[in-house]
Amino acid sequence: MNLMLSLHNNQILLKRRPTGWVTPDDFESVQTPIPSLSAGQVLVKNHFLSLDPYMRSRMSDAKSYAEPVKLGEVMVGGTVGEVVESQHPKFAVGDQVVGMFGWQTYGVSNGRGLQKVGSAAAPSRIPLSVWLGAAGMPGVTAYAGLFEIGQPKAGETVLVSAAAGAVGSVVGQLAKLHGCRAVGIAGGPEKCAYVCEQLGFDACVDYKSPNFRAQLKAAVPNGVDVYFENVGGAILDAVLARMNNFSRIPVCGLISDYNATEAYGVKNFVAILSKRIKVQGFIVTDFAQIWGQAVQTLADHIEHGRIKTHETIAEGLENAPTAFIGMLKGANLGKQLVRL
Amino acid sequence: MNLMLSLHNNQILLKRRPTGWVTPDDFESVQTPIPSLSAGQVLVKNHFLSLDPYMRSRMSDAKSYAEPVKLGEVMVGGTVGEVVESQHPKFAVGDQVVGMFGWQTYGVSNGRGLQKVGSAAAPSRIPLSVWLGAAGMPGVTAYAGLFEIGQPKAGETVLVSAAAGAVGSVVGQLAKLHGCRAVGIAGGPEKCAYVCEQLGFDACVDYKSPNFRAQLKAAVPNGVDVYFENVGGAILDAVLARMNNFSRIPVCGLISDYNATEAYGVKNFVAILSKRIKVQGFIVTDFAQIWGQAVQTLADHIEHGRIKTHETIAEGLENAPTAFIGMLKGANLGKQLVRL
Repeated sequence: MNLMLSLHNNQILLKRRPTGWVTPDDFESVQTPIPSLSAGQVLVKNHFLSLDPYMRSRMSDAKSYAEPVKLGEVMVGGTVGEVVESQHPKFAVGDQVVGMFGWQTYGVSNGRGLQKVGSAAAPSRIPLSVWLGAAGMPGVTAYAGLFEIGQPKAGETVLVSAAAGAVGSVVGQLAKLHGCRAVGIAGGPEKCAYVCEQLGFDACVDYKSPNFRAQLKAAVPNGVDVYFENVGGAILDAVLARMNNFSRIPVCGLISDYNATEAYGVKNFVAILSKRIKVQGFIVTDFAQIWGQAVQTLADHIEHGRIKTHETIAEGLENAPTAFIGMLKGANLGKQLVRL
Repeated sequence: MNLMLSLHNNQILLKRRPTGWVTPDDFESVQTPIPSLSAGQVLVKNHFLSLDPYMRSRMSDAKSYAEPVKLGEVMVGGTVGEVVESQHPKFAVGDQVVGMFGWQTYGVSNGRGLQKVGSAAAPSRIPLSVWLGAAGMPGVTAYAGLFEIGQPKAGETVLVSAAAGAVGSVVGQLAKLHGCRAVGIAGGPEKCAYVCEQLGFDACVDYKSPNFRAQLKAAVPNGVDVYFENVGGAILDAVLARMNNFSRIPVCGLISDYNATEAYGVKNFVAILSKRIKVQGFIVTDFAQIWGQAVQTLADHIEHGRIKTHETIAEGLENAPTAFIGMLKGANLGKQLVRL
C-alpha cells in the first residue's frame, strides 16, 4: 500500500462560476501531494465518484440551501473507496467506505460522516458503486420523496420525470413494489424502452415526442396521484393538467431550470388550487432521521433483485467534467459515475 | 307576512359566460312568482347576499372543482335571511337562517344545509350580515387555511394577500391572536391604513407601490413562515423570494388570474425546492369536519371584539353585478355584500 501513497492526488477544482450551461473550462485539474495523517484520521483511495445534478447549483453563488463551492476548491461530490491508511480506531486498511471526498482520487477524513459498507474480511454485499446510486443518496432521495411526501397508496398512479435517471429509476421501482401504477417521463425511445422493459414501469412517455401531451394523457388513464418532480419547466405544466384532486408533488429537482439563464414561468399554477394539490420541495439531507432505515431497505431490494440498477461510467477523473455536462443534458442512463 | 308573499321574486341569472373581465351584460334580471310550499319546505326572505371571488369561476365552464352555473340559472351565492313561511318542523317563521339561495330575494329549501343563527325570540348574537363574512364561509376559509395548512407557530411571520378582503382580514387577525407577526398585502394606502390601524396587523404593503418589493422585504425582516395566498401572479413571485426554509403557502385564491385570458407564469417556482416550501391548494368545503367549531370560535371572537369586521354594502339586488365586478377589481373594503 505504501507504494500507492507515494503517488500524487489528482483533483478537479472549480475554476469559475458558469452562466447558463457548464463548460469544461469551468474546471481545473491539479495534482497535489497526498497528505500525511494525524491521529484519528483515515486516508481513503476513492474508486468511484458520483455525479449528480445538485452539483450544478453548488457551482453557482446564487443563494441556495447549501454553501457554494468556493473558486479554487475541490468540486463537491460523493465517493466510495477503500481505506489505505488508518490512524482511526474504528477504521482499518481494506475497509470499504462511502464519503463526501469530492472530485479527487484520495481523501482524508476524521471519520465523521464516513459510512462503512464492507471490510477486507466481509466485502460489501452489493457492488461498491451502487452505494453511490440506488443504495446511496439518490436512492434515499427517491425513498424519502416518494414515501414521506408523496405518500402513495396501493392502486394509485405514481408519475416520475427523469425516470431513467438515478433517482427516477428507483422512484418507479419502489412505487411498483408498493402496489402502484408506475409511469415514467424520459427523453427518447431508448430511455423509455429501458424504463419499461428493464425497470418494469407500466408506461413511459418520451417528452421529446411532438405529441407528448397526448401520450402523457393516454399513459395515466386514471390521472396522477403522485408526481415526483425532477425536471420542471414545460413538463411540469403538462403534468399539472393531469393531476388528480388531492394529489401530491414532491419537488426533488428542476433540472430544466439549472442551466437556463431565464427561469421558466409555470402557467398552470391554478391547478394547485382547483385540484387541491400539495407541492412540497425537499432535499434528501432533511431526512437524516430515516437515512439508515432507507439505505437498508434499498440495499435489501437490490441484493435480492427487486430493484434493478444501471450505471453510466466515465473512465478516469479527467473525464468527470465532460461526463457531468453530459448528465445535465440527459446523456446518461441510470446512475452517472466516474471510475477513478 | 302574506302581503310579502304576494310580491314577486327578483332574480339575477347567468346570461352568458364571460371571456376575461365580467361585464354587466353577462347577467339578466328577471321577476318570477314566489313558489308555494310543499310539506317539509321553508320559504326564506333573503336580507343579504354575499359576493365572493369563487363566483367568477362558477361563471366559466372551464373544468373546476365545482359545477358551473348553467346559462339561464340563478347565480350561485350565500345568503342570510328570515323564514317567512314554514312547513318544516325544525324552522319557524322569524327564524334567522344562512343558506345558499343565490342571487334572488326569496328562496325555498327543504332545510338541508340551512344554518339557523337566531329566532324571533332569541335573535342572532352578532349582526346578521356577519354570518356571511367573518363568521361564515370567508371566516372558515381563513381559519382552515391558516391553521390546517399554514400551521403557524407563535412568533412566526404570517403574510396574507388581499389583506383588506373578507378572508385576508380574518387571516391576519387570527394570526395576531395566535401570537404571530401579521403582515398584509393590499392595494392602495387607504386599504393598508385600514389593515394596520383598524385590524391591528403589524405591517401592510401596497402592491401598487412602485417599490413594492423593497417595502415587502422591509416588512418581513425575519422572512415569511406562512403566506396565505389569495391573489397569485407577480405578487406570488415577489413573495416566494421572501419565504423561509420549511415555510408553508396555503393557496386559497389566485384572483389575479381569474379574469386574465392568459395565465401568469410563476418564475420563482425554484424557491419551492431550494427552501423546501409546502404549497397546498384548498377549498373551504373540503373542511366540513371543522366547520362548526370554526364558526363558533370566530363568532366568539367577533362577539367579544377580538376580531373586527368591515363591510362594503351595495343596495338592492339590481346592483349586485356592478358590485361583483368592483369586488373582482378590489373596489371593496372587507366583506362585499348586497342588501336585498
